[in-house]
Amino acid sequence: MGFEIFGYIATFFSAISAIPQAIKVIRTRDITGISFTTWLIGFLASISWFSYGIYLSDIPLIATNIMTSSSQLIILYVIFKESPVTS
Amino acid sequence: MGFEIFGYIATFFSAISAIPQAIKVIRTRDITGISFTTWLIGFLASISWFSYGIYLSDIPLIATNIMTSSSQLIILYVIFKESPVTS
Repeated sequence: MGFEIFGYIATFFSAISAIPQAIKVIRTRDITGISFTTWLIGFLASISWFSYGIYLSDIPLIATNIMTSSSQLIILYVIFKESPVTS
Repeated sequence: MGFEIFGYIATFFSAISAIPQAIKVIRTRDITGISFTTWLIGFLASISWFSYGIYLSDIPLIATNIMTSSSQLIILYVIFKESPVTS
């Protein structure tokens, strides 16, 4: 293990990054300022990575993107529920 | 090319996902509701992927993460500038 550690660190950060935003919208229900488009594209990215993981039979890629897409889905749901007008 | 297309789609979506949020905070300066922690972790993920890309000499990985980290840096800068209290 040398520089490869960056791959593991990157995977870890990617997997958890949406969690604080998901917790924040659940707690506050405040979606002001949040870009719906960003989270929609992020969700599409996660399900594409998930599909690619299935193709490669890559368990870390599959697991990571189940985690990210779940957080993103929570964020999208709260945005969708709290406001009909988004951008 | 078959299922590999998901890798390209995923890369594309990942590269552009933070852009709408960056544009939105620049335009509105409204950071209410946005999680600073999420964007900080996302930025750390991008620079880790970038470093991993350098290690692998993987140009698409490097290019993608220059794009994402730039958008994330803009978002972090506006959050930092607009509010001393973040979460």
